[in-house]
Amino acid sequence: MTNMPTTSNATQKPHDQLAAFLADDMIAVNDLIAARMASEHAPRIPEVTAHLVGAGGKRLRPMLTLAAARMCGYDGPYHIHLAATVEFIHTATLLHDDVVDESAQRRGRPTANLLWDNQSSVLVGDYLFSRSFQLMVETGSLRVLDILANASATIAEGEVLQLTAAQDLATGEDIYLQIVRGKTAALFSAATEVGGVIAGADDALVQALFNYGDALGIAFQIVDDLLDYQGQSAATGKNIGDDFRERKLTLPVIKAVAKADAEERAVWQRTIEKGVQEDGDLEHAIALLHKHNTLNETRDQALEWAAKSTSALAALPDHPVKKMLIDLADYVVERIS
Amino acid sequence: MTNMPTTSNATQKPHDQLAAFLADDMIAVNDLIAARMASEHAPRIPEVTAHLVGAGGKRLRPMLTLAAARMCGYDGPYHIHLAATVEFIHTATLLHDDVVDESAQRRGRPTANLLWDNQSSVLVGDYLFSRSFQLMVETGSLRVLDILANASATIAEGEVLQLTAAQDLATGEDIYLQIVRGKTAALFSAATEVGGVIAGADDALVQALFNYGDALGIAFQIVDDLLDYQGQSAATGKNIGDDFRERKLTLPVIKAVAKADAEERAVWQRTIEKGVQEDGDLEHAIALLHKHNTLNETRDQALEWAAKSTSALAALPDHPVKKMLIDLADYVVERIS
Repeated sequence: MTNMPTTSNATQKPHDQLAAFLADDMIAVNDLIAARMASEHAPRIPEVTAHLVGAGGKRLRPMLTLAAARMCGYDGPYHIHLAATVEFIHTATLLHDDVVDESAQRRGRPTANLLWDNQSSVLVGDYLFSRSFQLMVETGSLRVLDILANASATIAEGEVLQLTAAQDLATGEDIYLQIVRGKTAALFSAATEVGGVIAGADDALVQALFNYGDALGIAFQIVDDLLDYQGQSAATGKNIGDDFRERKLTLPVIKAVAKADAEERAVWQRTIEKGVQEDGDLEHAIALLHKHNTLNETRDQALEWAAKSTSALAALPDHPVKKMLIDLADYVVERIS
Repeated sequence: MTNMPTTSNATQKPHDQLAAFLADDMIAVNDLIAARMASEHAPRIPEVTAHLVGAGGKRLRPMLTLAAARMCGYDGPYHIHLAATVEFIHTATLLHDDVVDESAQRRGRPTANLLWDNQSSVLVGDYLFSRSFQLMVETGSLRVLDILANASATIAEGEVLQLTAAQDLATGEDIYLQIVRGKTAALFSAATEVGGVIAGADDALVQALFNYGDALGIAFQIVDDLLDYQGQSAATGKNIGDDFRERKLTLPVIKAVAKADAEERAVWQRTIEKGVQEDGDLEHAIALLHKHNTLNETRDQALEWAAKSTSALAALPDHPVKKMLIDLADYVVERIS
C-alpha cells in the first residue's frame, strides 16, 4: 500500500488514500517498528511479532496518529515514534486477547498462541508494551505519556470488565459502551489525541481529535459486533455467530434481552449465561434479534457514532487529510448501511 | 511489620529493620497501592490484586526504593509513587509468571490463575502495568520513566529468553546470568536507581545504587535456584526439585552439564530437554550435582554477588539505612552459607 501513487483516486478506499498520502511517514513507521521489535537476545520475540505485524493489518491506528499530527501542521520527528507506539500497544493487546479468548485464528491465520504457546503470547505482549513505553518516553512529552498511560489503563480495565460482564444478562447498554470504549475506542482516541498534542495544537483541536477517535472507535466496534450476526464470512473474515458461541453479550443481544418475554429470557439464560448451546440455537437467537428489531437499532447507533466522529472534525482546519478522515468514518459503517 | 517499634533490635531480620525504619513511608505506600489497585468499574481487579498483595510478600522492592531515596536525603513525596510503581510491576510479573509456569501455588496459597482463570491473571497483570505507568508519569521525571521503561523491557526479554533457553542444554552461564538479570535483578536495580534519581543524587551515587540492586538481585535469584536443590521445604516455602520437574536449566545444572560425561549428558537430555522423568531421576540429578561439586560452586557465586552488592554501598554516605542494606545482602545468602 505504501507504494501506491500519491495522487487522489476516488475509487480508493479511505484507508488506502490515507496510506498513499502518508506513504513516506508510513515507511518510517514500519522501519521503526522493525528495528524496535528486534531482540538481540531472544529471537522468539521477532518471530512472534513478525507473524502478527506481517499478517496484513491495515495499520489504521498509526495512520490516525500520523494524520492528526499532519493536519495540525507538525513537522518534527516524533509522530513516527507515537505511531509505532500505538501499533505496538495494539499488537500487544491482540497477543493477550488471543490467550484470553483462546482464539485459534486472527486475520485468517493461526494465532500466535496456537503456533507457539500461551506463554510466548503473554511474554511477547509484555515485551511490546515495554517497547511502546520506551518509544513514547523518547518523545520527551509528559502530556503524551499521561494520555497513553491513561489509555492503557482504560484498555485493560475494559478487557477485565468484558471478562466479568460478558456472560451476565444484567449487563446493560451503559456497561457495553464502557467495554467498547476500553477494548477499542480508547486506543483510537489516544492515537488521534497524541497526534494533536505532539503538534502543539490548541486544546479545542486536541479535544476535537479525541472526540473523532472516540466516536470512530465506538462505531467501528459496534459494526464489528453487528456483523457477527449479519455479516458474510467471505466479506468480513468473521464467522457468523462467533460472539454467540463465545457467549459474549454484545449490543444486538443486550437490546433483545431487554425486550425478552419469560420464555425468550430462558433461552438467553441457557445459551449465554449457562453456555448450554444446541443445534438451532444460533438461528433461534438471530430470529429473536429480528423479532425485536435489534439489528436495525444497533445499526442506527453505529451510524450515529459515525456521524458524531465526522462532526467532531468540523473544528479542524481545511486539510487534504480531513476529507479522508471523514470518508473513513463513512467507510467504517458502509458495510452495514 | 509496619507497627514494629522503630528502635534498633539486633535480633530483627534486616528487612524487618528496614520496615521499622521506613514505617511511615511504608504506610503511605500501602495506602497508595490500595487506592490505585481499585477499579470502580471492574471489581475483579481489586479481588485478584488483593489476593496477591495481601499474601504476605515482604515488600522488599518498594523498601529498596524508599531506602535509596532516604539515604540520598530525599524529602519530597514521589519516592512513595515510585515504591508503589515497583510493587505494581512486581505483582504484574507474578500474575503473568503464574500463567506462563502454569503454577498452582505462590507464597503457600493457590495462585490467581487457579482461583480465577488465566484470563484474569493476564488482564489484571496488564492493568497493574498500566497503573504503574500512571504512577511514574505523576513524578514528572523523564529520567525515571526512561529507567523504568528500560527495566520493563529487560524483564520481558529475560522472561522470553528463559522460555526458549530453559530446556536447551546449550544454555551456558552467560545466558543464565542474562535471564537472572531480566527476571529478577532488573527490577531490584531499577528500584534502587530511581530512589537515587528522584532524590537528585549525583551520577556516582546513582551508579552505586544501581550496582547494589543489580548484584543483590542476582545473589537473590542464585540462592533461590540453589535452594531448589538443597533447601528444606518448611524453611523456604519451596518444594525440592520444582525447577527440575519444570525442566528449568539453572546454575547448578548448567555447571553439571558442562562437566558431564556421555552417560550423564544422556540423563540431562532425557530429563530436561525431552522432559521424560521417572522415579529416582531427581535423586540421581542431585547426586550428579554433588559429584561435580556444582552446589558448592553455585553457593560461592551467590556469595560473590552478595559481596559485590555490599561493596557497591561503599560510595554511599553514612546513614542508618546503609547498615541495614549491608545486612540485607548478608541475609539473602545467609541460608546457604
